[in-house]
Amino acid sequence: MKKTLYGSCTFALGLAIVALSLVNKAGAVDAVAMQPPPVVDPGVLARIRDAAMVNDWGWQRLSDLTDKIGPRLSGSPQLEAAITQLAGVMSSLGATVALQPVKVPHWVRGEEIGELVDYPGRLRGLTQKLHLTALGASSATTPKGITARVIVVHDLDELKLRAREVRGSIVLFESNFDQRLASNGEAGAAYQQSGFYRFSGPSAAAALGASAALVRSIGGAAYRLPHTGLTIWKDNQAPIPAAALAAEDADLIARLDASGPIIMKLVLTPQTLPDADSFNVIADWPAREKSGEYVVVSGHLDSWDLGTGAVDDGVGVIAAAAVIQVLKQLDLHPRRTIRFVGWTNEENGSRGNKAYFASVSHVIETQVAAIENDEGGGRALGIAAAVTPETLAILQPVQKALGPIGATVLARRDGELGSDIGPLQGAGVPGFAPLVDARHYFDYHHTAADTLDKVDPKNLQSQIATMAVLAYYLAELPDVIPRFKALQ
Amino acid sequence: MKKTLYGSCTFALGLAIVALSLVNKAGAVDAVAMQPPPVVDPGVLARIRDAAMVNDWGWQRLSDLTDKIGPRLSGSPQLEAAITQLAGVMSSLGATVALQPVKVPHWVRGEEIGELVDYPGRLRGLTQKLHLTALGASSATTPKGITARVIVVHDLDELKLRAREVRGSIVLFESNFDQRLASNGEAGAAYQQSGFYRFSGPSAAAALGASAALVRSIGGAAYRLPHTGLTIWKDNQAPIPAAALAAEDADLIARLDASGPIIMKLVLTPQTLPDADSFNVIADWPAREKSGEYVVVSGHLDSWDLGTGAVDDGVGVIAAAAVIQVLKQLDLHPRRTIRFVGWTNEENGSRGNKAYFASVSHVIETQVAAIENDEGGGRALGIAAAVTPETLAILQPVQKALGPIGATVLARRDGELGSDIGPLQGAGVPGFAPLVDARHYFDYHHTAADTLDKVDPKNLQSQIATMAVLAYYLAELPDVIPRFKALQ
Repeated sequence: MKKTLYGSCTFALGLAIVALSLVNKAGAVDAVAMQPPPVVDPGVLARIRDAAMVNDWGWQRLSDLTDKIGPRLSGSPQLEAAITQLAGVMSSLGATVALQPVKVPHWVRGEEIGELVDYPGRLRGLTQKLHLTALGASSATTPKGITARVIVVHDLDELKLRAREVRGSIVLFESNFDQRLASNGEAGAAYQQSGFYRFSGPSAAAALGASAALVRSIGGAAYRLPHTGLTIWKDNQAPIPAAALAAEDADLIARLDASGPIIMKLVLTPQTLPDADSFNVIADWPAREKSGEYVVVSGHLDSWDLGTGAVDDGVGVIAAAAVIQVLKQLDLHPRRTIRFVGWTNEENGSRGNKAYFASVSHVIETQVAAIENDEGGGRALGIAAAVTPETLAILQPVQKALGPIGATVLARRDGELGSDIGPLQGAGVPGFAPLVDARHYFDYHHTAADTLDKVDPKNLQSQIATMAVLAYYLAELPDVIPRFKALQ
Repeated sequence: MKKTLYGSCTFALGLAIVALSLVNKAGAVDAVAMQPPPVVDPGVLARIRDAAMVNDWGWQRLSDLTDKIGPRLSGSPQLEAAITQLAGVMSSLGATVALQPVKVPHWVRGEEIGELVDYPGRLRGLTQKLHLTALGASSATTPKGITARVIVVHDLDELKLRAREVRGSIVLFESNFDQRLASNGEAGAAYQQSGFYRFSGPSAAAALGASAALVRSIGGAAYRLPHTGLTIWKDNQAPIPAAALAAEDADLIARLDASGPIIMKLVLTPQTLPDADSFNVIADWPAREKSGEYVVVSGHLDSWDLGTGAVDDGVGVIAAAAVIQVLKQLDLHPRRTIRFVGWTNEENGSRGNKAYFASVSHVIETQVAAIENDEGGGRALGIAAAVTPETLAILQPVQKALGPIGATVLARRDGELGSDIGPLQGAGVPGFAPLVDARHYFDYHHTAADTLDKVDPKNLQSQIATMAVLAYYLAELPDVIPRFKALQ
C-alpha cells in the first residue's frame, strides 16, 4: 500500500463516528416508511454477507499465496507463479480471465551490511552492527561499500541548513512514526507523516550530494525490524544507495550523534535489471443484463520481498477474488459485470494500474465503480466512498446489510481510495474501499514479519463480506451511481 | 537468564497477592505497638530509596554498556571491554575492585541460512527463505550445508514414537510459548515449558541420529525474530547443528507438514574456539564493622550476541552496581561489606558463578546473603526471598520502605533465585531477587531486539531502589538472618 489511500483514509476515519450517528438518526421508522421499495433485494445482500462469513475459500487461497509462494516482488518468479495460480483459480470459478500485459520494474535486493565503525565513546577495536534493508529503487554501493560520516536530520529544513555537511555524507532521516496517532485510528496519517521521508528524503539528500541516505523505519513496532518500501527519485536524478534502518539502530545513531561524529560503513548491492514481463489478472463475472458495464473489485498481487505479503496485500487481493467465489456459490449474476482485478506492481512502479487505465480511458463510462482493498488484515469497519454527497443515501442498504457484522461505517471521501484505482477515480469513476482496523497494520507493513499468521481468518471474512455486498449492490442497481471525480 | 530463576519465580508470583494480603492484616496498629524498636533506621532506608529514584547514574551506565559496547558474549572483545569499563566505574566509586579470573567457553556465530527447498504444493523452481539463528553450543554443518527432510514433533514422546524417521533428518520441536501464561504474571513458567525443548530437544534428537535440530523460538512476540539461547548436550555427546526458527517459520513448516514431506537446506557455521580468559568483576564496599561478612548484590555482565543485552542482563548488572553508587552518594557504610559481583558467562557455561563459589565455599559462612537480578527491565514489584519462613518477619521493614514505590510484594521461595547465586543458595546462603514485571520480557529475550530502548529509566530506578534498600538492610542488621538451603 502506498500513501494515496491513507491520505484520505485518515479523513474518513475521522468522519466515521459522525457519519454513523447521522445514519442512526436517519434510520427512524417514519423515514423508512416514506422510502420507495428497495431496488436491490435486501435478502440477497444478507445471503451474500452470510455466505462470506462462513466460508474458508478465501483463507485457503491466502494460504496458497503466502505459504506456498511467499514474497512476490515485481519481476520475481514468485509473482509470476502467483499470477498463474490466481488466473487458474479465477478461471475455475467460471469467470472470464484475461492477463493484461504490463512491463514492470525489476529491482532485486542484494547484500546489506551496516556497521558503525567509529562513534563517540567507542572502545578500541569495537564496531556495532546495524539492522537495515535497502529501499526499493536504491542504487548500489561498490561491493566493498562506502565509509562516511552520518549526518542526522529530522526534516528537510534541517537538511537544507546542513547542506554543506551533506556532500559525501550518509544522511539519516530520523523521523518517528507516531504510533499514538495510529492507535487512535489515524494509521494513515501516521504513515504519511513519517513515510514522507522514505519517499522523498533520499532524493533530497542526493540533490545535495549525499553519498547515501537512510531513513528510520516507517512503522509502529520496535523489534529491530527494518521496513522496506519505495523511495522516489526525481526525473533524470541519479539514485544513491538508500536504506531503512531498524528503529532501534536509527535511535542508537541519534543518541550517539549528540556526543560527536559517527562514521558508518554501508554495503548495499541491489540491482536494477531490465523491465520484466508481468500481468494484471482480470477476471470478469458475467452480467445478467449489461455486460459492457463494470464494477471493479481489486487488490494488488505483488508484494515486497521481505515477508510473504499476507497483510500487504494478500488479504486485499484475495478478498476481492473471493467476491466472485461468493457470487458463484450463490449462483448470483447481477445486472452488470463484476470485474476482479489483481493488480501487478503496486509497490514499486504503479505500472499495473497505468496499463489498465490506458486500456479503458477511452471508454471510461463503462467503469461504473471501482473498489480497492489495500489496508491490511484488520476487521472491516465499513466502507469509504469517494462519491457525491447525494450518493450516500443510495448506499444505505449496503450499510444496513453489513450491520450484523459490525461494518457499520459509511464515510464519504473526496480523495483517492487506493493507488491502483486512483487514475479511474481521477477520471470520474466513483471509488470505494473497505475501511479496516489498521491500528497495527504498520507494525508489520513492508517487513519480514508480514506473514499469514498476522491475518485472522474472521477478519478476512468480514472484508470479503463487505466487498461482496457492496460490489453486488453497485452492479445490481437499476441506475448507475453518479460520477465523482476524486481530488488527486 | 536461564531457567533456574524462573522455575521458582513463577511460584513466587503466584504467592504474591496472598503474601501482600497477609502483610496488610499483620500491619495493624496494635501489632506495631508491640514490636521492639527498629534495628535498622527506617529513615535511612527511605533516604536510600529516594536517592535511587531520582538518580540517572544507572541509566548512564546502562547506556555506556549497551550503546557504546553492545553485545557481550563470552570470549568476545565486547565482554572484555565491558569488564574493563565496569571495573573502572566501580573503582572510581571507591569500592575495592578485584577481577576474578574465569576460563569461559568461546563460541562464535557464523553463517546462518535456512531454506525450504521442497514442500507440498511448491511451484516449480520456488524455494522459501527461513529466519533462524544458531543456538549456543550448536555445532556446524559443512560450509555448503545439509539438505534433509524435516520431522515436526511437539514433544519428546512424539520424538520417540518417530525414532525411526529421525535418523538423518532435521527435527523441529514445535512447542508454543504460552503468552497467555506470561501475561498473567507467570512468564517464568511459560519460559520453562517451551524452553525445555531448547535446552534438551537437540540433545534428544542427536541421541536418535538426527542430522540437525530446530526449535520454535522461545518467546512471546512474533516479529519474525529468532530467539537464541543455550542448548545443552549430554556429557560426551557429539553436538549437532541446532538453531531456533522464528515463530512464523516454525509455524509455516508445521502447516505445510500437514500435507506432505518437507525438505530443508540448512547452513550453520558457528565455531567453538578454545576457552577464553574472562573475569567476574568483584567490587567491595567497605563495611563499618564486619568486613569479613558479605552481602552479595549481582547481575551478569555477559549477554547473547544478537542484541545489546539491555534487558538480559544489562539492567540487572547495572542495578546491582548502582547499589554501591547510592551508598557512596549518601556516604553510608553499613555494618557488613556489600559485595557487587558482575558475573561473567551466565548465558553459556555458568563458569563465572562456579569460579566464585569455588573461591568462597570453604568459608561459606562469610556469605551472609546473595541477591541476583536477572529478570529483565520491568518495574520492580517487590522481593523474592529464599529464606526460612520465620525470616519474613525480619524483612518487613524492607517491604515497608519500598511501599511508596509500589514494590510491595514479599514472597518466600524454596528454590534458586538466579543461576549465578544458585550454588551459594545450595550451600545455605539466603537468596534474594527483585521481583519484576516480566510480562513482556520474553518478547525481546535473546533476540536482536534486546536493546536500550526496551528499558524504561523509571523501571531501572525502581530496581535499584529495591536492591539498594534490601542490600543495605541485610548488611546493617545486628544479627545475620538464618541460613536457608534452597532446593536445587
